[in-house]
Amino acid sequence: MSATEPSFRGFRSIAIVGVGLIGGSIAAAVKRRGLAESVVGIGRSRERLEAARSSGLVDVVSVEIAASAESELVVVCTPVQRIAADVREAVARSRCRAIVTDAGSVKGAICADLADGLPRGVSFVGAHPLAGSEKSGWEYADAELFQDRTCIVTPCLNDGTQAVQTVESFWQALGMRTQRMSADEHDRILAFTSHLPHAAAAALASLLTDNLYAFAATGFRDTTRIAAGDPDLWTGIFQLNARNIGDQLDLLIGRLTELRELTARQDAEGIHAWLAAAKRHRDRLEG
Amino acid sequence: MSATEPSFRGFRSIAIVGVGLIGGSIAAAVKRRGLAESVVGIGRSRERLEAARSSGLVDVVSVEIAASAESELVVVCTPVQRIAADVREAVARSRCRAIVTDAGSVKGAICADLADGLPRGVSFVGAHPLAGSEKSGWEYADAELFQDRTCIVTPCLNDGTQAVQTVESFWQALGMRTQRMSADEHDRILAFTSHLPHAAAAALASLLTDNLYAFAATGFRDTTRIAAGDPDLWTGIFQLNARNIGDQLDLLIGRLTELRELTARQDAEGIHAWLAAAKRHRDRLEG
Repeated sequence: MSATEPSFRGFRSIAIVGVGLIGGSIAAAVKRRGLAESVVGIGRSRERLEAARSSGLVDVVSVEIAASAESELVVVCTPVQRIAADVREAVARSRCRAIVTDAGSVKGAICADLADGLPRGVSFVGAHPLAGSEKSGWEYADAELFQDRTCIVTPCLNDGTQAVQTVESFWQALGMRTQRMSADEHDRILAFTSHLPHAAAAALASLLTDNLYAFAATGFRDTTRIAAGDPDLWTGIFQLNARNIGDQLDLLIGRLTELRELTARQDAEGIHAWLAAAKRHRDRLEG
Repeated sequence: MSATEPSFRGFRSIAIVGVGLIGGSIAAAVKRRGLAESVVGIGRSRERLEAARSSGLVDVVSVEIAASAESELVVVCTPVQRIAADVREAVARSRCRAIVTDAGSVKGAICADLADGLPRGVSFVGAHPLAGSEKSGWEYADAELFQDRTCIVTPCLNDGTQAVQTVESFWQALGMRTQRMSADEHDRILAFTSHLPHAAAAALASLLTDNLYAFAATGFRDTTRIAAGDPDLWTGIFQLNARNIGDQLDLLIGRLTELRELTARQDAEGIHAWLAAAKRHRDRLEG
């Protein structure tokens, strides 16, 4: 067993609950970087899990979270509305006081759900790797998905400092920078940087009609790409982060309404100022 | 002189008015495909034009549209609010009854502006190559920018059929498919497929604040990329296609308001249906 980061010693066994694009990419990265002797893949479909094992992505598979009992680290990568229950189950089944982390796009509701009911001394440290794709399924797993990206770590329970550090060093060992913040701050930020763009992309895409497909060029494609994301997964995000997303939708609708009014008046100066401000903001983001 | 398409014989001289990303890419494609003996580049900045000539992009440069007098084809690639005036000037200066086309993103206002005042027998055939980038300047010129893309051709004056066919075969010779439609239909379609995504991307980008840049990952970047487009150019588009863009903004604001209400009610079934419909539409667009 080797570890690529001095601060992360590696584990005998890491269990991944939910072997989709993210869980599968974690498995692939753990394997490539030699971070565990054994990777346990846990999911719902025995057939898909067997296929993941055959491909070499994971070593052991099961449809029971109990299969994580001997893993020192459990990473829960299920849709956000199932994470709290899966964390509870992993904790209940653990025979080695596992550290549990997750990869959910919403953190406050999960922390709140877990605030009571976890045994003392058990460590759940929430995390959100800012990496992904509109694709679904472990077939798109990519061992380099996390390289040079940011992982937000949100301690929210009576986590020991050591557990937080272990979880941070785990995500760092996958190639990520980690940043610690509260679950509420995470949810406010992501409502804007991730959930609002999804809403805008989906609203645009939903207006496509048959006669328009032929005319949707690069700009339309780029702007709507993320609307292809899994609706099951995103429904959970919109439910669990409803208040923050609602606030952000109000801001976006406000901005579009300003432009609507400037356009109706054909106010060239106003339109120019509105567009130029947007460009200034976008130009500071490269790529 | 050679022509790559049997239907396009090529010209002795092609003039390009406005040597930016689009004009420069047309020049590069004309050169690579051997569609003219000489390419005349006309613009506002003598210094930038000289640099374009030094780089081999064009053969002759001038800050005067009169320099197109001997060109059989003039392609006007200036910002939309200047196209009609530049077409008029090119027609007035032509000593060889040039065919004039353009590359503007709005067509109705230009056709209306030119509806009276062009001498009989002079041919202006509006066009809009659906290709581009958020980049500006001939330095980003790409001879393959038009390959396999669609060019909408909008005859709107007393254009002879032959002029329309010549213009279509010119764009085809750059590698494009052409589709003929009315200027009004073009403007309704593009208000949705191009101008509305720009509005949405710019509205999102405008909400970025200093503390959020570090958390804007791939999804945010893709969704806002086109907001980096030139505000001068886009102000003209929003002015000249104001009515159609206003209608589209109303539809987009309506869709976002629906989602706002579903989110406020935490209506999981409604949110799912809304997101799933958007995904179905986006999935039909590949890439």
